[in-house]
Amino acid sequence: MPELAYLNGKILPIEEATVPIEDRGYQFGDAVYEFIASYSGRMFRVNEHLARLQRSMDALEFPKVSLKEIEAGLSELFNQAGFDRAGIYIQISRGVAPRNHPFPADSKAQVVMTIRGLNEIPDEILEKGATVITLKDFRWGRCDIKTVQLLPNAMAKQKALDAGAYDCIFVTDRGIVREGTSSNAFIISGGVAVTHPLTPNILPGVTRSIIIDICARKDIAVEERFYSIDELYAADEVFLTGTTTEVMPIVRVDSYQIADGRVGQYAKLLYRALRQEAESG
Amino acid sequence: MPELAYLNGKILPIEEATVPIEDRGYQFGDAVYEFIASYSGRMFRVNEHLARLQRSMDALEFPKVSLKEIEAGLSELFNQAGFDRAGIYIQISRGVAPRNHPFPADSKAQVVMTIRGLNEIPDEILEKGATVITLKDFRWGRCDIKTVQLLPNAMAKQKALDAGAYDCIFVTDRGIVREGTSSNAFIISGGVAVTHPLTPNILPGVTRSIIIDICARKDIAVEERFYSIDELYAADEVFLTGTTTEVMPIVRVDSYQIADGRVGQYAKLLYRALRQEAESG
Repeated sequence: MPELAYLNGKILPIEEATVPIEDRGYQFGDAVYEFIASYSGRMFRVNEHLARLQRSMDALEFPKVSLKEIEAGLSELFNQAGFDRAGIYIQISRGVAPRNHPFPADSKAQVVMTIRGLNEIPDEILEKGATVITLKDFRWGRCDIKTVQLLPNAMAKQKALDAGAYDCIFVTDRGIVREGTSSNAFIISGGVAVTHPLTPNILPGVTRSIIIDICARKDIAVEERFYSIDELYAADEVFLTGTTTEVMPIVRVDSYQIADGRVGQYAKLLYRALRQEAESG
Repeated sequence: MPELAYLNGKILPIEEATVPIEDRGYQFGDAVYEFIASYSGRMFRVNEHLARLQRSMDALEFPKVSLKEIEAGLSELFNQAGFDRAGIYIQISRGVAPRNHPFPADSKAQVVMTIRGLNEIPDEILEKGATVITLKDFRWGRCDIKTVQLLPNAMAKQKALDAGAYDCIFVTDRGIVREGTSSNAFIISGGVAVTHPLTPNILPGVTRSIIIDICARKDIAVEERFYSIDELYAADEVFLTGTTTEVMPIVRVDSYQIADGRVGQYAKLLYRALRQEAESG
């Protein structure tokens, strides 16, 4: 099955897909994106991802883009590639214009997608859990818009790997826990699932929202509120959620072991429920 | 005289220069840049710009790039285009790799340049001054690295234009004045030139540094220190500095007229001194 790209309506090999150097995505990071996973030959939660894509474009006053066309392109790409388990990346930039900070008056949004097979999270991580470090949140103030302003995320992820950890969780100067580099963060404390509320400082995660729904159905109380790094260290469980992260159990944060250092029951239960939902479409 | 691009060693028309969609500059804003101006057929302060470019690449642990090659490409591009007064944009990205947050182990930095004629700042602005608005600084925490994480700058510039102003000055939550969207900010207060110190939150501007040197030669005291939005409003003079901004007098900030609302003597003197230095190479 081939890895493929979609470029403004055309499907071609990823290596052959190029954009002009004056695409504002390249010169200003003036682009938004989504990442969609498929399970058993079906893309999961396409509507939610496309709705967030539209929200991101609206927040940045992008030129109008037809979501119908995006959806059609997405289907065509997915069908041509033929993966059962795939990751589809969609990026839309404001367009191409001679370099100048203000939004160009009449640019045309550029639509790029790629599709590749998606590896499952190794069993070992699901069974033994992963470790994270924390870093001061040094990202920009609009992390609720899913843009390619991702250099701090890349730097933090690299720092985590260099430290032998799986990922990094961003924490503010005042000790408020935000989220991971490409995931939302949850803790379980006294049987309650706690996660950062939706503000301009975190991504409104599609998986975050699914997990909250699953909790409601399973009578697990959820609190969307600020919580501190001390609460994080002292939590009964910690996990990250995201489209590729799914429900990733975290058993160590910085130098602190979480509870008994083993993957918790809530993380296991929520992972299974998420997978069930994903596999059943 | 043609507008031209330079792409990894090759000179070609700007419209024909493209980069792969998986260039990390496009997908992560993982790229650094410089903008160099020429006066009377000579590029101004090339060494300072290239030194800062190297500093940016070092800060981000980029793959090694030969500055000698960059310098040779820059000269060739400049000579082929043949502008007396030009703006040369240089962008270097970490390279091309399948999308993944961590730094790829073996990517090759991509080097892109463009050259275009540069318009002089209209006389009217130099004579009557410009207006700015202030906005909460919502950029990331490493504005000292000159990267393409520029979406907040573009958004702020657009907001300023929408408000009928020339630019926006970023101010922190606590009222500390940072800088413009593509320039540093100075005030004159009681005969002293005050500007934000070099921290991770502002760009170490080449023109900022030239202006500080000129002040020293002209016995104008300079204080590199934090100053507040109240000091900004109450200043005797306000001006922005930058490669294309040169010394831009600001006569109104938000709803406040600066002093008597006319372009001040310091801004005029420093503008003339900068131009003299630039024109004489």
